[in-house]
This record gives sequence, C-alpha cells and structure tokens, in this order.
Amino acid sequence: MSVELLTIGTELLLGQIVDTNASWMAQRLAEAGIDVFYKSTVGDNWGRIEAAIRLAMSRADVVIMTGGLGPTEDDLTREVLAAVLDRPLRLDAAVLCHIEERFAHRRVMMAENNRKQAMVPEGAEVLHNPRGTAPGLLMRSEGRVFVCMPGVPSEMKPMLLEQVIPRIRDSLGIRSRIVSRVLKTCGISESTLDQRIGDYFREMRSPTIGVLAHMGEIHVRMTCKGEDPAEIARLLDDLEAKIRERLGHLVFGKDDERLEAVVGRLLREQKATLAVAESCTGGLVASRLTDIPGSSDYFERGVVSYSPAAKTGLLGVPPEVIQTRGVVSLEVARAMAVGVRRMGGTTLGVATTGIAGPAGGTPEKPVGLVCVALAWEGGEAGREFRLHGEREQVKYRGAQMALEMLRRHLLGIPMDEV
Amino acid sequence: MSVELLTIGTELLLGQIVDTNASWMAQRLAEAGIDVFYKSTVGDNWGRIEAAIRLAMSRADVVIMTGGLGPTEDDLTREVLAAVLDRPLRLDAAVLCHIEERFAHRRVMMAENNRKQAMVPEGAEVLHNPRGTAPGLLMRSEGRVFVCMPGVPSEMKPMLLEQVIPRIRDSLGIRSRIVSRVLKTCGISESTLDQRIGDYFREMRSPTIGVLAHMGEIHVRMTCKGEDPAEIARLLDDLEAKIRERLGHLVFGKDDERLEAVVGRLLREQKATLAVAESCTGGLVASRLTDIPGSSDYFERGVVSYSPAAKTGLLGVPPEVIQTRGVVSLEVARAMAVGVRRMGGTTLGVATTGIAGPAGGTPEKPVGLVCVALAWEGGEAGREFRLHGEREQVKYRGAQMALEMLRRHLLGIPMDEV
Repeated sequence: MSVELLTIGTELLLGQIVDTNASWMAQRLAEAGIDVFYKSTVGDNWGRIEAAIRLAMSRADVVIMTGGLGPTEDDLTREVLAAVLDRPLRLDAAVLCHIEERFAHRRVMMAENNRKQAMVPEGAEVLHNPRGTAPGLLMRSEGRVFVCMPGVPSEMKPMLLEQVIPRIRDSLGIRSRIVSRVLKTCGISESTLDQRIGDYFREMRSPTIGVLAHMGEIHVRMTCKGEDPAEIARLLDDLEAKIRERLGHLVFGKDDERLEAVVGRLLREQKATLAVAESCTGGLVASRLTDIPGSSDYFERGVVSYSPAAKTGLLGVPPEVIQTRGVVSLEVARAMAVGVRRMGGTTLGVATTGIAGPAGGTPEKPVGLVCVALAWEGGEAGREFRLHGEREQVKYRGAQMALEMLRRHLLGIPMDEV
Repeated sequence: MSVELLTIGTELLLGQIVDTNASWMAQRLAEAGIDVFYKSTVGDNWGRIEAAIRLAMSRADVVIMTGGLGPTEDDLTREVLAAVLDRPLRLDAAVLCHIEERFAHRRVMMAENNRKQAMVPEGAEVLHNPRGTAPGLLMRSEGRVFVCMPGVPSEMKPMLLEQVIPRIRDSLGIRSRIVSRVLKTCGISESTLDQRIGDYFREMRSPTIGVLAHMGEIHVRMTCKGEDPAEIARLLDDLEAKIRERLGHLVFGKDDERLEAVVGRLLREQKATLAVAESCTGGLVASRLTDIPGSSDYFERGVVSYSPAAKTGLLGVPPEVIQTRGVVSLEVARAMAVGVRRMGGTTLGVATTGIAGPAGGTPEKPVGLVCVALAWEGGEAGREFRLHGEREQVKYRGAQMALEMLRRHLLGIPMDEV
C-alpha cells in the first residue's frame, strides 16, 4: 500500500509559493495511518503532468493531486487525468448549478471559462467543495485511486479530512491511525530533560517519544500507532501521566497551547492583574499577552520604557541605580517591575531590560544579556539570562523568559530549575 | 536543459518539517536562469532514494539533492549516489580535518560516526561547508551534473548561491538570468493601483509586472529576464522610475524593506522622536518599531493602555470623552496620541484604539474597527479603518495603518489617498 502526493502548479516550481499543502497533507495522512512514499511537483504543462501521473500509477496505489483545477487555460489537471484514464469529460449539471449559485450569491457575473470547472470525467465521484467553485474528484481505475483537489488550502484541507481520508482508509482497508501529543516546556535545558525522562525516550517503543527544541521551548512529542482510538488514548494518557510525574510543573502546556495563553489562564483563575514594563523586548511581551482573546480582563497596561527618561520619570527607577548599575542590570529590572506594578495598581508587575543587539554589547554585558524581574505584594525577584540569536530572536526569547517567570510565580514553582 | 530537485528525508514526507528549501532553491535557480522542471521528495530509504536518482537521471540534466548527509545511519544520500554512479567512497583527509577542527573549536568530542561525513565518492568535487560538518558534493557523469548539499538551510543556502549556481550556469552554458524587484505600497486598494498602473501590468511584456496583496500591503513585482546584468538593471530602473512617477509617495519601500524600517529611517533623518500609545494593537506597533536595530535613537516610549485607568491616568484622556464617545473612537485615539506625545516630550505621538475581536463588536462598532491618530507640534489627525481578519490580523493591520500614517505625515503625503 503506498500513496503518492502530486502537487501541480508552475508557481510551486518557481518557488513563488512555498508548498505548505504537501507537508500538511502528509502529516494528516500519516496520522490516519496512510503512508506517503513519494511527493512530487510539476508545473502546469500537459506533457509533464501526464508523465508524472503515469509514473505515480506505476509505483503507488493512491495518487493524490492538488492544484490545476481552476478556470483558466493553464489549469490542466482534470483534462490530463481524464485523458490518461481514457474517460470522456461531461458537463455535470449539479456542479454547474453550484458554481452559478456561488457567483450569483456574490453578485458577480460568471465568466464563460468557469463552465470548465463543471466538467467531470465519466465515472468520477464528485467531492463537494462548499468553500470554492472547483469540486474535487475521486476516480478508481485498475485497482488504483486517483484524487484531485483544489490547491487553495482553505478548500483543500476540509476536503481531505472529511471526504478523501475516510474513502482512502476504506479502499485500502486501513484501520490503524497515528495520534501525536506534545508536552511543552520552557526555560529548562535539553540535558535536564534528558536526566528526567531520557530513559523513556531511549527505551519506549510504543508510544515513541521525540524531543524538539523550538524558539525558547523544548517539546516532548509522544506518538502512538494503533487501531482502536480508545486504546491509543489510554496509552498516551498513561505515558503523559508518567512524563508529567517526572517533569511536574516544568510542563507548561500541551499541543497547540501557547505560553501567553497559559499565563493568561492562570492570571484569570487567580483573579490577578498584570502590568508590564519592557525595555529590550520593546512591547513584545505585551503584544503576545494581548494576542489572547479576553486578555483585557487581566492585562492592565504595558510600558515600553526605551529611553532612560521613561524609566525614571514614568516607572520611578532611581537615576542613581541606572548610573551605578547600568540600564541593563537586575537592579533596574526590579525597579521597573516594582514601578509598573505600583503605577498600574496590579497584582503583578513584570519587567525586561537587556541588550538585543546587534550593537551595544560589551565584554561584561554582551548582546543577548537579558534581565527579567517580577514584583508582587511584598516581594520581588530577578533573573539574568544569556540568550543567543539575532535581535528579533533575543527579543522573542527574552519575552519567553518573562512569560515563564510569570507562570512559575503564579504556580509557586522555583525559578532556578533549569 | 532541465533541472530536478530531490529533497531527501523521512521528516519531509511525514510533514513534520515544511520543505522550505525546495521553494527557496527553485526561486534562486529561476533567478539564475536555471529552470526547474521536477521537484521530488523521498524518505531515508535506500531503494526509494536509488529509484528517485535513477528517475531524475532519465529526465534531467542536473540533479540537485539536499538532505541525508548527516552522520547517522539513516543518512544515505552520499552512499546511494556513489553506488548508482559506481564510484567508490574514499576518506578525504582535508574534509576529515575540517570536521575535526569544528569539533575541537566547540570543545566537543567527535563521535566516530562523524568520519562518515568525510567519505567522498571518487572524482567528486568537494563543496566546502564553512557553516557545518557535512561538505557538499558535485559529480559529473555521462553529461549530467549531480549535486548533494546538506539539508540545514543555513548551510545549504550560501553553498547554492556561491558554489553550485555558478558551476551549473557554466556547465549548461547559461548566460541569461532573471532579476525581480518589488515596490511596496500600503493603505491603498488594488483598484487604486489598477487605475494608476493597470496599463503597465496588462501591456508590459518585458519586464513583466505582477501585483500581490500581502498582510496589509500590496506589492508590485517587476521581473526581467536577460543576459546582460547592466541591461537588465537599466530596464528595471526605467520601469521602476515610470511606476514611481505614477504612484509617487504611495510606494513606501523596495524589496526587503519593511514599513517599520522606513518609518525609522524617516524619523532619524528628520531628527524626530516618537512615543506610541496602543490599545487594540497591544504593543505590536512598539514591538515592530523596536525590531529595527538602532531604534532607541528615535523611539522614546510606548504605552499599552489596555484599561480605561491607563488611558485616563497615564495618558490624560478625559473620562467624559471615553463616556460620551466610547473607548473605541477617533476622539479617544486623538487624546491618546496627544497625551503620549506630551508625556514623552517627543516630536510625534501615535495612538491606536479598536476592537480586535473576537468578542466586543456591536453593529455600530464591529470587530475590525480601528481608530488611529497622530499628534505633532500644533496639530493632530485621526482616521478610522475597517479591517478584516482574526484578532491577530486585526492587530497586525492596525499596526500597519499606524505606521503608514506616521510615514505619510513625515513625508507630507495626504492621509486620504486610498
């Protein structure tokens, strides 16, 4: 059993569009227990599309094509496939009606060439496309399955999930599926992770465990293959519980959960409010926190105190602290956190100051040095980080550390577990 | 003359990594006048890599492979290619020395399996890799050229540009190249662009013109193919001058230039300083401005006044204006801009207030409504925008409009040319 993906479009070959469809499809198919062995791309050229389809037929049981179903002359997928399989194209009245309705609904005249999208090869199953004009097509021939889908991601994705994958699983008699879960950590090193759960990811065979570093986070991915969804869920639940037992609160979130959303949830649960003072992160901590819907419930204000005047005048950092310790110092970060908290009248204050680069570094205070501080009723704490990367990465990782310090404080986890 | 790209790696087939290399390579090759006809991906599997290489040999003159040059057992590219071309692998002393030096420099013990990366097929040209351990390889056989490069983008990209493309152009006797230039506009509609330069993009054959909308910007891409770099530059200069004559200051930047960098440059040139007050954009205007190195020269402070208290207490927005006009109103935006400018003692103040969604919209003030205002010595101005998209897109487009209003003000262009 093998599947080949064939993405069609000259713009893909010219590199004007990154082919995100192919990797997205491969991932969803893998999860559904369908292995992709080949992935190819050809331009909008009859000869090369035909050759690619013939080649795919010679080595795969299922050929999934995207692109080339549009109304213009260079859209050839439907026509070439019909010719290769020797199926005449016929106008499908129901499809035409759907296309006409879409145009009528948008009060746009349907161009004559859109009729082309209603042509269906004899014997093909039409895959309804509620989000666009071009329907998908599924054809069976000599024991093989051929699928054509539009290249527009918003049209293709639901079509693959809802219509194509169930039919392929049926056709190929596949009952297994692959389910992944990701546990996310922040602010700890890979070697800490290795000490804590290294035995699992070296020894576990099912589910398997992988570790991936990604922009200031380390993700632990658990992957399980099986037939029974309930059994897969049970195995993943077991493993997740074991890993969580070892890592405890070092795990900040799961799957698509973002650190700023976790911090927001904790603030909301604890009825806490937050004010942010940023120097080197330049507003990124505030921007990430306010990416989360409903953040106005706990995010009171942010201050980007880039100038010394903003630090002293607005946040009340004593000028002599700046003078003796330097703008980038734990002392200034702490004074900023205390100041913004007082000014905002919030439960918590958080602050960053650092050297994002590329200029401004010295041997004692190199580019990448970021000081983060927290202030709360009756207390404050600060930590120094040496972050690597370009200016925008230092900003991002600095913001990440500020969010992680907030999270640990809200959960009462020590800051120094790294 | 035809070129095939072959990307190798199981992680690409599983969709765990989006294959950005392939599209990047295709783009750079197209610019160098080298047409890519096929793009394929296979996993780390001897049989399938071998079949893919044999297939590529049957239909292409140049085969460019990436990936599978690492030190681990599943990295097979070098070995399979050597077998297909019947060239024995030999340990290359210079390559081994380079690898050993890299490990010594990082004070890390070299694992035995890294020696594998120093194995070079007989007759292969070694492409030096100063950024990693695996060198690239270039082999010629039966009139064909085979290139292997590491899959790590930071290692592959300079290798392609500096070593591979010049050799392929030589081998294939290519003298033509394709050069693109992009002019960027913001805050105007596609129909305005069509009225102004539609005749060019409908009629021009060389250079050609394309128009592409992208996150609050519309880009005009000019593309020219030719042999003589000076002649290409002249044609693009001519067309660029014509388009700029029609669009004037609506063009904010060129190629990779970002709006926040352009605003920063204008502020610096005019020795102006800036303070930012943000509500709906939540710190994103400040964060984008401070992404630019050296922004501390003109960016004085930012305030994210999410709560009404921050708007009144910190920025001095009169509570009765909030009460009568609502938090999201031109009046509040103007008061915020005036307030933050006064507080920062800056040349300019800019402010945003709006409804980023998903909740909070009303029939009169729907999600996507964003008010932007500017304040300067002796004046102020505000504009209302209806932006579409999800919360983060509304934030981004709102920030875009704030930056564009700043740019137009700094250049004395009317705000209402849309």
